[in-house]
Amino acid sequence: MRNLLSIDELDRDGLEEMLDLTEHFVEINRRNIPRVPALRGKTVVSLFYEDSTRTRLSFETAAKRLSADTMTFSVGTSSVKKGESLRDTVETITAFGIDAIVVRHQSAGVPLQITRWTDAAVINGGDGWHQHPTQALLDAYTIRDHLGSLHGRTIAIVGDIKHSRVARSDVSAFTALGARVILVAPPTLLPSSVTGWGVEVSHGLDRVLGSLDVCYLLRMQQERMSEALIPSLREYHRGYGLTMERAARLPAGAMILHPGPMNRGVEIQAEVTDLPNCFITEQVSNGVAVRMAVLFRLLGSGTQLDVLREEP
Amino acid sequence: MRNLLSIDELDRDGLEEMLDLTEHFVEINRRNIPRVPALRGKTVVSLFYEDSTRTRLSFETAAKRLSADTMTFSVGTSSVKKGESLRDTVETITAFGIDAIVVRHQSAGVPLQITRWTDAAVINGGDGWHQHPTQALLDAYTIRDHLGSLHGRTIAIVGDIKHSRVARSDVSAFTALGARVILVAPPTLLPSSVTGWGVEVSHGLDRVLGSLDVCYLLRMQQERMSEALIPSLREYHRGYGLTMERAARLPAGAMILHPGPMNRGVEIQAEVTDLPNCFITEQVSNGVAVRMAVLFRLLGSGTQLDVLREEP
Amino acid sequence: MRNLLSIDELDRDGLEEMLDLTEHFVEINRRNIPRVPALRGKTVVSLFYEDSTRTRLSFETAAKRLSADTMTFSVGTSSVKKGESLRDTVETITAFGIDAIVVRHQSAGVPLQITRWTDAAVINGGDGWHQHPTQALLDAYTIRDHLGSLHGRTIAIVGDIKHSRVARSDVSAFTALGARVILVAPPTLLPSSVTGWGVEVSHGLDRVLGSLDVCYLLRMQQERMSEALIPSLREYHRGYGLTMERAARLPAGAMILHPGPMNRGVEIQAEVTDLPNCFITEQVSNGVAVRMAVLFRLLGSGTQLDVLREEP
Repeated sequence: MRNLLSIDELDRDGLEEMLDLTEHFVEINRRNIPRVPALRGKTVVSLFYEDSTRTRLSFETAAKRLSADTMTFSVGTSSVKKGESLRDTVETITAFGIDAIVVRHQSAGVPLQITRWTDAAVINGGDGWHQHPTQALLDAYTIRDHLGSLHGRTIAIVGDIKHSRVARSDVSAFTALGARVILVAPPTLLPSSVTGWGVEVSHGLDRVLGSLDVCYLLRMQQERMSEALIPSLREYHRGYGLTMERAARLPAGAMILHPGPMNRGVEIQAEVTDLPNCFITEQVSNGVAVRMAVLFRLLGSGTQLDVLREEP
Repeated sequence: MRNLLSIDELDRDGLEEMLDLTEHFVEINRRNIPRVPALRGKTVVSLFYEDSTRTRLSFETAAKRLSADTMTFSVGTSSVKKGESLRDTVETITAFGIDAIVVRHQSAGVPLQITRWTDAAVINGGDGWHQHPTQALLDAYTIRDHLGSLHGRTIAIVGDIKHSRVARSDVSAFTALGARVILVAPPTLLPSSVTGWGVEVSHGLDRVLGSLDVCYLLRMQQERMSEALIPSLREYHRGYGLTMERAARLPAGAMILHPGPMNRGVEIQAEVTDLPNCFITEQVSNGVAVRMAVLFRLLGSGTQLDVLREEP
Repeated sequence: MRNLLSIDELDRDGLEEMLDLTEHFVEINRRNIPRVPALRGKTVVSLFYEDSTRTRLSFETAAKRLSADTMTFSVGTSSVKKGESLRDTVETITAFGIDAIVVRHQSAGVPLQITRWTDAAVINGGDGWHQHPTQALLDAYTIRDHLGSLHGRTIAIVGDIKHSRVARSDVSAFTALGARVILVAPPTLLPSSVTGWGVEVSHGLDRVLGSLDVCYLLRMQQERMSEALIPSLREYHRGYGLTMERAARLPAGAMILHPGPMNRGVEIQAEVTDLPNCFITEQVSNGVAVRMAVLFRLLGSGTQLDVLREEP
C-alpha cells in the first residue's frame, strides 16, 4: 500500500485491518500527551485546491501527533495563481524532500494523476464527486465502534447522493463490510444509474426510518436550489430533513451521522444534534485517529507497533 | 480559573499574581533558548474572526515557547465561508482534541458564548468593543515593571475610548491596581456614560500632561472621520496627538505607551516613538510573556513552577 | 556576516565557502531523518509582501530541518492592510524575540532598509528587480555540483533580463566564480546598459546554443506582452524558447536550468523538462540545502560543524 486514492483499494480484510489499526490511535488520542514518535523526521504536505479547514486541520493534527512535520500549500497564496501547473507544483514540493501529499481537488482523478509526478505517498483528501476515502474509514470506524460490526446492519444515506464523494466512498466501505445500504433522495439528487453499487434506493425517508441502524445525512448545498434540483431548502427539509419527530421514529440505539459542516434547519433540525444517539463530534474525533492510522500505514515501518507505546 | 474572558475576572490579588507569574516568563524569554516544556502535548488553537496577525503571532509564539502545539483556524480560509455556524466550528475543533481556544471576534460576548460548546480553555483575544484582557495585563505589567507599582500613579488614556476594548480593559486593570485614570478625548469619542468606571474625564490633553506618570495613546481609526466623530485626522492630531512638544511637557520618567499598530502623525508624532521613555516595543515583548503566563495558568499544572527551570 | 542582502556581499572566496557549506546540508537532506539540532530555540520569520509559496516553503523547510521555529507574516492577513508601516511591522516581530527575517518585497532596497529597525539577521528573499541572493547560490551550487567548477564555463541566461532579480544575482555569482556569461534576449528585454556587468549580449539563442555549458531560462511574464515588450508569447517561444530541436543542438552534457515556476510552451517546451540534462527539480532540492547553509552561517555558531553530525 503506497497511496490511498480510493476506498475501493481496500477489500473487506483491508478495511477491517485499517479499522483495527485505528483503535490504537483512538487510545493514543486519549492519553495526557497524545503524541508518538512514529513518523519523526517525515514531512506531510497538504495540497488543497478546495477550501477545507476541517479536513486539512484533521490531517495536520494527525501528522503532528505522529511527530511528523507538516507543510500547507494552499492554492490561495501559491504560485498556482501565477499559472503554475499542477505538475510543477507537485514536482516542486517533492523536490523539497517530503514523504506524503494530502490532496484535495475539485476534479475527480487528480490524486491518481499526481502519483505519476512524485515518489511521495499520495492521500486523497477528496476529489470532485469521486472519492473521500478517509471519510469512509472514519464513518465505518464510528459505526463499528458502537454497533460492533457493520455486517447485516441497515444504513440509510440521505440527501444529495449525486454530487457527493462522501456517499460514493461510504457506499463502497459500508457494502464491503457487509451492511445493507439504502440511498434516500429525490430522483434529481440520485446518479443516473446505481447499477453495480449494491444498494437499494428510496425516495421517502419516512418509509425507511423504522428499519435503520444508522441514519447518515449528507450536507445539502445551497447551489442545488439555484440549479433547480430541489424546489427550496424548506421543501427539502420537509421531505428529507431529520427532524426531532423523525428522529423519535428511529429504532432505539440507531445512530445519527453527518460528515459536517451541517446546515442546521436543512438536512438536520438543530435540536437533533443534541440527541445522545447523534455521533457527529465523535466522527470528527475518530477522523484524527483514522488519519493517523493511514499516515502510519503509508509512512511508518508498517508492522512495528511498538513505536506507538513510547512517547517522543 | 478555567478561562480568561474579561479582565474583570481578576481582582487586585489575581492581577498581581498574574503579573508576578509573568516575570518568570520575561526571564525565560531572555534565555538563549527561550523554551520550556511546560505545555508539551497541549494544543492551542487560534480562532480569529478578525484579522490580527500581531495578536495571533504573539499568542502562537507564547504557546510554542511553552512547547505546546498551535493550530490556526482563520475565518478567511475556513468552512465558516460555507456558512458553518460558530457552534459547529467550536465543536469541531474541540473534537480534534485541543486544550485552549484563543478567540477574536467582532462581536462582544462571543468568547463567553463559546465556553458553552467546548471543554477547552477559552481566552478572549479581543471581542468587539468589549474586552481584550491580555492587552490589559501586558500594559499593567509594563507599567509596574518601570514604576514599581501602579498604586497612586496617574495614567491618561487618550483617544477613541468609546470604540476601544483596550480602553475598557485597561481602565479595569489600572483602577483595580490602584491607579488614578483620566480618560482624555473629545466628547464624541467618549461612551455616553462612564459612571461606575472610577475614572476622571478630560477634553484636553494639554491640561493633564504635566501630572501624568503614564500617557497611553489609543489607535485612531480612519473610520471615525467618515463617521464625522472627528473633523479630520489632522485636527485630531492638533488636539490629541502626542507631539514632541507635548512629550517634552510630560514629567521626567513619565511613560509613553500605545497598543499598536500606530498611526504615526495621527495619535503620535513619528519622532516620539524614538524617545527613551516610549515603551511601545517593550509592550510587544511583554505581550508574549503575559500570554505565556496566561496559558501556563490555564493549562499548566498551576503551581508547579519547577517545570520552568528545565529546558525541553 | 550578519545579513544576506545581495549576492555581491560575497566575493569569490565567500561564494565558494558557502557552496562548500551547502554540501554538508545536501548530505543531511539525504538522511532518513533529515534534521539537525543546529538552530534549536531560534525563530525564523517569513515576511512576504509578494506571494511566493515556493520560496517561502523552501526557507521554512530549511529552518525546520535545522530545528528552528518558523513564523509566517504574510501581508494578506496582516495588519499591513490596516496601514501599519513596514517599520512598525519589523519592530513588532523583532520585539517578539526572533532571530532572522526572510523578506520578499516588490521594491528594491527594502531588505536593506529593514536592517535599520531590527537586530535580527535579514535575508533577502527577493526584492523588486534587484536581488535574490539565495537563488544565485542554489544555481551556482547546482552547476558546480555537475560541472565541478564554474570557472571557464559558458552560461547563457535567456529571457527577460531587464525585469529579473534572478538574472542580476546570477550574473554576479557566475562571473565572480569565473564563468563567461552571455545574456540572450531581444533588445526590449535587456536593461538600458550592462556596462560593468562583465557579460556578453546576444539577440539570438540559435547563435550561442552550440557553445554553451549551461542554458539558463528565465520565466516570461504574461505582462510583458501587454506592455508590448514582446509581440506575443508564441513569437517569443519561436525566437527564444528552448524547444526539443534546440535542446538537441546543445553540446553533450550541457545543463538546462530554470528558476521556476515554468511557463511550459513559452520559454521551455514541455518535453524538454524530461530530458536527463534538465536539472530543474534538482535546483529546488538544492535550494533547501543552500538556505540551510545561509541560516546556519548567520544564526549558528559558525564554525561548529560538529552539531551537524548529531541528530536532535
